Amino acid sequence: MKGPLFNQDSTEFFYTHSADQMSAEAVDGWVDSLAEAGVGTLFSNTNAMRANYASKVWETDWHGYDPNGPDDQPVLKYLPREDIPGTRRRLDSAKKLAEMGIDFHERAFARCRKLGIGCWVSVRMNDLHDCHLQDSPLLSTFYKEHPELRRVPYRYTGWPDRALDWSQKLVRDHYFAFIVEHLERWDLDGLELDWMRFGFHFGIGRELDGGEILTEWIGEVQKECSRAAKRLGHPVRLGVRVPSTPETARNLGLDGAAWAKAGLVDLVVPTPFWETCEFNMPIRAWQRLLQGSRCALAGGLEIRCQPYRGAPAIMMTPEFAAGAAMAVLRAGADFVYLFNYFADMHLGGQWTKEQYDTVLNAMQSIEALDRLPRRHAVTFRDIHAPGEPWDGALPATGTILAFRLQTGPRPTGRKVEALIEVGSAEAATPELRVNSVLCPEPHRNGATLTWSVPAEALADEMHVVEATATDGKPLTVLRVEFAIGPKAP
Amino acid sequence: MKGPLFNQDSTEFFYTHSADQMSAEAVDGWVDSLAEAGVGTLFSNTNAMRANYASKVWETDWHGYDPNGPDDQPVLKYLPREDIPGTRRRLDSAKKLAEMGIDFHERAFARCRKLGIGCWVSVRMNDLHDCHLQDSPLLSTFYKEHPELRRVPYRYTGWPDRALDWSQKLVRDHYFAFIVEHLERWDLDGLELDWMRFGFHFGIGRELDGGEILTEWIGEVQKECSRAAKRLGHPVRLGVRVPSTPETARNLGLDGAAWAKAGLVDLVVPTPFWETCEFNMPIRAWQRLLQGSRCALAGGLEIRCQPYRGAPAIMMTPEFAAGAAMAVLRAGADFVYLFNYFADMHLGGQWTKEQYDTVLNAMQSIEALDRLPRRHAVTFRDIHAPGEPWDGALPATGTILAFRLQTGPRPTGRKVEALIEVGSAEAATPELRVNSVLCPEPHRNGATLTWSVPAEALADEMHVVEATATDGKPLTVLRVEFAIGPKAP
Repeated sequence: MKGPLFNQDSTEFFYTHSADQMSAEAVDGWVDSLAEAGVGTLFSNTNAMRANYASKVWETDWHGYDPNGPDDQPVLKYLPREDIPGTRRRLDSAKKLAEMGIDFHERAFARCRKLGIGCWVSVRMNDLHDCHLQDSPLLSTFYKEHPELRRVPYRYTGWPDRALDWSQKLVRDHYFAFIVEHLERWDLDGLELDWMRFGFHFGIGRELDGGEILTEWIGEVQKECSRAAKRLGHPVRLGVRVPSTPETARNLGLDGAAWAKAGLVDLVVPTPFWETCEFNMPIRAWQRLLQGSRCALAGGLEIRCQPYRGAPAIMMTPEFAAGAAMAVLRAGADFVYLFNYFADMHLGGQWTKEQYDTVLNAMQSIEALDRLPRRHAVTFRDIHAPGEPWDGALPATGTILAFRLQTGPRPTGRKVEALIEVGSAEAATPELRVNSVLCPEPHRNGATLTWSVPAEALADEMHVVEATATDGKPLTVLRVEFAIGPKAP
Repeated sequence: MKGPLFNQDSTEFFYTHSADQMSAEAVDGWVDSLAEAGVGTLFSNTNAMRANYASKVWETDWHGYDPNGPDDQPVLKYLPREDIPGTRRRLDSAKKLAEMGIDFHERAFARCRKLGIGCWVSVRMNDLHDCHLQDSPLLSTFYKEHPELRRVPYRYTGWPDRALDWSQKLVRDHYFAFIVEHLERWDLDGLELDWMRFGFHFGIGRELDGGEILTEWIGEVQKECSRAAKRLGHPVRLGVRVPSTPETARNLGLDGAAWAKAGLVDLVVPTPFWETCEFNMPIRAWQRLLQGSRCALAGGLEIRCQPYRGAPAIMMTPEFAAGAAMAVLRAGADFVYLFNYFADMHLGGQWTKEQYDTVLNAMQSIEALDRLPRRHAVTFRDIHAPGEPWDGALPATGTILAFRLQTGPRPTGRKVEALIEVGSAEAATPELRVNSVLCPEPHRNGATLTWSVPAEALADEMHVVEATATDGKPLTVLRVEFAIGPKAP
């Protein structure tokens, strides 16, 4: 297996290419761009609630959609008006490619094989996009016809309350059929069960019992993988995406560590959900929990960066991505796993192609990443099991505030800076220590302060940043970052 | 090894017995009371900063103390006046016993052997009681003469800032000599390094480097244990008390999981520090991290119970102790470890002797505990590494609030209640669900509400309690408990 691992969602190619652009060569060209970026393994996602290819066992994305029909046809009429053109483009393109007799995944995998890129499918196990709508091309008939299968029937606080309840056999069977089709249809190196879309699969307080059901069910999937391996003459591995923290994963019934130890899965990918990349994932804990198993470990990077819920969010920059990738590799992950890192869509216009190719290529190793500038940020973990306490670090208020960041190998011999955004441009400048060492006076730009970090403060793996109020008044901190310059050649 | 494991601190016996009561029989009688309570292994603590026995390598507790001198003699004059009589009693008693030629630990261990109780010493690795005072019988000359060895020289926020910095060889050597004396002096089944007095041993941000130093140092201690084992003709095991959460332990340089995996220690005791017993310790995570090692695992119970920092604290009741013990055993701990569970001192007057003996005896097994009434509470973890975010669950405010409790085996066929204290007696009564199941109307007593939990809500290991405001206004919750009645005989 080769990194970085790259998840391609079921819609992006069809959003960013028109029906007129559909061709086998367009698929090849897209795979070629991944190869240029050094992607080691493609995780090609096939579904939200429907299949993005001409499945024989599930509805397709374009099921019930009339390309020549009006914007108020049943599957479109509940969408926000501004979403309709993009949705139509996506459906038109997917339908067109299928009608041309081209299976997106089959074609992509063939190209991957040629280029030495690993071929996995990734199945979203409970996607909920648009589930608050009465209808949408994202909603399956199965979902619409079975409101009684929802995990939290007595309230509505957001999409996850309407997730399908996996303790119901009907739900498991529905997905099982879909997965079996995958294993019989393509030449795969692996199959990923993406439990992180959307992370919640059981009634509140029913997750541990649910986990036991999933463990057994995954055993059945593993048997299907073995059958496929026999057919293909090479291994077909099984992977899972799970919540970033081992305890939370278990408390949600997604006990990746137990599955690895039981020999049920070959790859575990701890990851945040979506709100922000999580720079301080406990990857070291995962690495230790997986010891003694044959399971590989990848750290999942998301595409948004947000210091706290409700704060302004930005897209990950090349420096942030290098930082987050470095942190997971240094903490013992075998691979970096990228989710929503689409050159065209999310990153379009913000990263140059050179940045994209450089940073993704570097994610293959600590050594390569260490040559690049990187940036680490205090963010938060955006997935907790019901009843787990909140543990976000920001915003923080007090006279002494400390933050811990996972920062990769000791960044000796280069420029290192600590950045803090305080509550207001008028606040007194705090004193800053990094690993107990006092930093010289900062550069101040409004509410943003940047300190140069003395060489004697630098350490391997982690840095603790301590801000102390100098006027005795409680200080508010909104953002904390740690920036490491490029290594001198 | 047999549970429960019982830590006897270096002062309690001498506080609760006068000099006149000092005798070999008094020590025997005290051990007999442990035997009646079913204590499986005694962890006899020998020190704070000084030895409580006639050590040849460390100062004794009564060093510099004149029993016939006034209350303003140097070692007493900085103490609060109200503490002086108790301190004098303690010093008088310890001195007297030593002068009678009786070694407290030697005598206690001999009695333990006769009664089948295991014999360990427990050494506090950085005790800091009274370290804010200019002098006290609790402060060693070594400590007073080496202010330059303190871990946080640039501030004072509390005792731990003045802890000795274990990255200093002088500190390690000071403790090593003391430990070697233990191993040469007594017939021990084991030696415990109590890193949880007071949990902080390195400069801020220097803990990972410090952890590597400790790992090497513990290897040296292990060699001394092997030497002692050869002398004694039986194994002398090595144990550690460490912070309750594996990641925090590692972030403080107290990497119990790594020490276990490296074969350096035979017992790991995750534990809170002191503020409150922690009912939701991640013992399952520890159990998994220790898998494949030969290391035993014990869950540490403290004696206070406090829902959040600053809230009223009570002493643990028999029901709370049974609940906390059950949670650690059910989560995979081999043993329950009791700290500050002194029948005379802390619990005196609050537990009857029958309660004490019944509950401690029951801590030997899940089956015995399951017969007793037990109570589980939402509290908080009182030890974090510098820069780790706060993660207390209470107090909580919102329109839907959820709490997760580790509750032991499914409590079928008995009375089960959920209790919540809301912010004010005037607040509207919330709706309560346990594991998604709506509970019938509560009994209300001012701000405290008690719901009967329906049988269909009950689950193994954990319960999630969800409180929902019924008037649309944010609800404040100050306390959450889960009470399980005794098993019908």
